[in-house]
Formats: sequence, C-alpha cells, structure tokens
Amino acid sequence: MPMANVTASITTSLDGYIAAPNDGPGNGLGDGGERLHYWVFGGPWSSETGPRGEATGPAREFLESAAARTGAIVVGRWMYECADHWGDRNPFGVPVFVVTHRPEEEPDTGEFSFAGSFEEAIERAREAAGGRDVAIGGGASVIRQGLEAGVVDELAIIVAPVILGEGKPLFDGFRKSVDLEPIGVQDLELATVLAYRVKR
Amino acid sequence: MPMANVTASITTSLDGYIAAPNDGPGNGLGDGGERLHYWVFGGPWSSETGPRGEATGPAREFLESAAARTGAIVVGRWMYECADHWGDRNPFGVPVFVVTHRPEEEPDTGEFSFAGSFEEAIERAREAAGGRDVAIGGGASVIRQGLEAGVVDELAIIVAPVILGEGKPLFDGFRKSVDLEPIGVQDLELATVLAYRVKR
Repeated sequence: MPMANVTASITTSLDGYIAAPNDGPGNGLGDGGERLHYWVFGGPWSSETGPRGEATGPAREFLESAAARTGAIVVGRWMYECADHWGDRNPFGVPVFVVTHRPEEEPDTGEFSFAGSFEEAIERAREAAGGRDVAIGGGASVIRQGLEAGVVDELAIIVAPVILGEGKPLFDGFRKSVDLEPIGVQDLELATVLAYRVKR
Repeated sequence: MPMANVTASITTSLDGYIAAPNDGPGNGLGDGGERLHYWVFGGPWSSETGPRGEATGPAREFLESAAARTGAIVVGRWMYECADHWGDRNPFGVPVFVVTHRPEEEPDTGEFSFAGSFEEAIERAREAAGGRDVAIGGGASVIRQGLEAGVVDELAIIVAPVILGEGKPLFDGFRKSVDLEPIGVQDLELATVLAYRVKR
C-alpha cells in the first residue's frame, strides 16, 4: 500500500492567528475568535449561544471533499480540550489520534487514541488511514511539528477575512524556510483557501 | 471632487513576512527574500544578478490594473532606501510621497516628495491623486499606520508561496482588530492576491 498523503489544514486570520486571546475549553477560538469560523457555520455566530447554521455552497463542498479524502486525523491535545472532546464522541467517522504528553489519560471509550509523541501519532494514523490521507487538523503546534519534521505533503491555510490584532500565531517560533507550490485557491465566500504542495 | 480611495497592497510570505532578514539598500527583500517577488518578475531571480524577466499573464494584468487606478503613491522612507531611490527617478508616472522623520533631506530633483508624517503624506497624496486612488505601497510600517488610522479603504495582500521562517512581519506590533470584506481572490500563478474592503 502506498504511504498515505499527509495534509495539514487550519483557519487563520489575515494576520496569522489561529485563535483570539483566552482560547480554551468552552471558548475554543478565544474572545471574538468566532469570526475565524464564520465560514464553517454559514455566517456569524457566538461561542456563548453556539453555532446555529452550517456551511453552505463552496464551504460545504470544501469540507465534504476534505472529509472524503481523509482516512485518519491527528490533532493536538489542546485542540482536543478546546473542542470539549467533541462531546466524548468521535464525530469524524475515521480514527483520531491525539498528541499528548500524558497518553495514559486516554479515555476508555475507544473514541479517541492518545499518542505520546507527534511521530507516534503520524505513524499510527498512516497505518489506520487505509490508503486515504492523514489529516493534521491542528492546533498550531502539531502543524508546526509536521512542517518541521518534513512529513506534511499538502498545506491548506483557510484565511478568514479578519485582522485579530492578537491571539495565537500559527507560525509562532517556527524558524524553518519552506518552499511551496500553489495547487489551488478557493473562494469560500466567508474565507479563502490557499492550498500548497510542500516542496522537498 | 470625491475623496480619493486609499488602497494598501504588499507581498508577504505565507507566514506573514514582507522581507527576509538583513533587508536594506541593494538587498531590498533580504537574504533569500527574492522568492517573495518571483511573481513580479515572471519567475526566479536573485538580488545579486538582478531581475531578468517581467510579470506575465495574470500578474502583469494585476500590476497594470493597479497602476491604472493609482493617482498618487505613499511609501515609507525605509522602502525608498531599500529600493535605492528607484535610481533617483520616479518610475511610477504619478507623484510619490515618502514618509520620513527627516523631510529636509528631500532631494532637489523634484522626483520624490518627502513628508514629515504619515498624515501629511496621505493628505498631500489625496490632493495630488486627481480623483484616482492613493496607493500605500509599503513597507510594513506605513501600511500598519494606515490601518491604525482607519484611512485604508482597500487592503490587498499578495501571498507568495513560501514560508520564510524569519524576517520582517507585516503585522509586527499591530494590536487593532479590523473586520474585512473579501472583494476578490486572484491567482497570479506565482502568488495569490487576497483583496478586502476594510469595514468601518
């Protein structure tokens, strides 16, 4: 079986933040950070009342196309916590590997697999992906680790139409130069996808 | 006469740098920063040998369209120095105002106008633009000043397909939140334009 393609994708503000300040459980995108994900939910929403709508048109097509390609997902522990463990049920329909310093805290539900290192998570995800893509879903740290380790084949940045001015920078402390080959721009109306193949 | 539209546009890396390290006169985009402007010159070039090609196709159309809309240009002193004063001849065909703390250093060629503050430069550029746009051409500092002051009507970020890992960040120290309305994505082949109207 050919080695799985590894993709990484994440939404950022135009000034490169993946979350506004004070992100955490119950406030996954930080204070005012909901604007990053208007495209995901079809328009404005607030983390207090929760999303009401869903992606439509090109945004929906983008999400469905990405899901169809994906055989396994790797996320960081902080993202897992910020997403409130997705209600302790894996909503993705494919195995999810959570990178954590405390793999012994894996819940016994069987819904999520904890891995003690990024490398371990990628290796187990490749095996689980059944020939489809391994998707690194965020947060920023696991995407930086993927780019640093040179395992990311495709990188998609979904740019939301907002300058946040503060928050968590995707490329915080990332010091490597990486050449990219553009493989597609997509206008999702409430955001823009910049997709690249990572040159080796 | 209606007030001139103020546009700001600049090329950045995917990680938000407008120049690689050690930018300065003779090395305007810094060490390895030429990759930011492959789109301007039709492909790879180096600052040692200088550009050999020129923009073609959609990149050329983008530059020509921007030039046709522009009635006056505002740039920062550092950009003026990094561009080696454009050989002491204004190549743009419209008045150029250089923001500087030392306006008394304006050369007596009449090619460039020095302004002692950003506000003065914008005001004089509006008067000189003859109803066309005032274009803030960079560097990063004058674009940040424009966004901070709320005078920018349209912002275009031209994203080059490279992660630099270090350099001069466009949004360095910028702490204001700004909502944007996407007004167009353009694939220039060697870069991607993200254009926005700044919401008030």
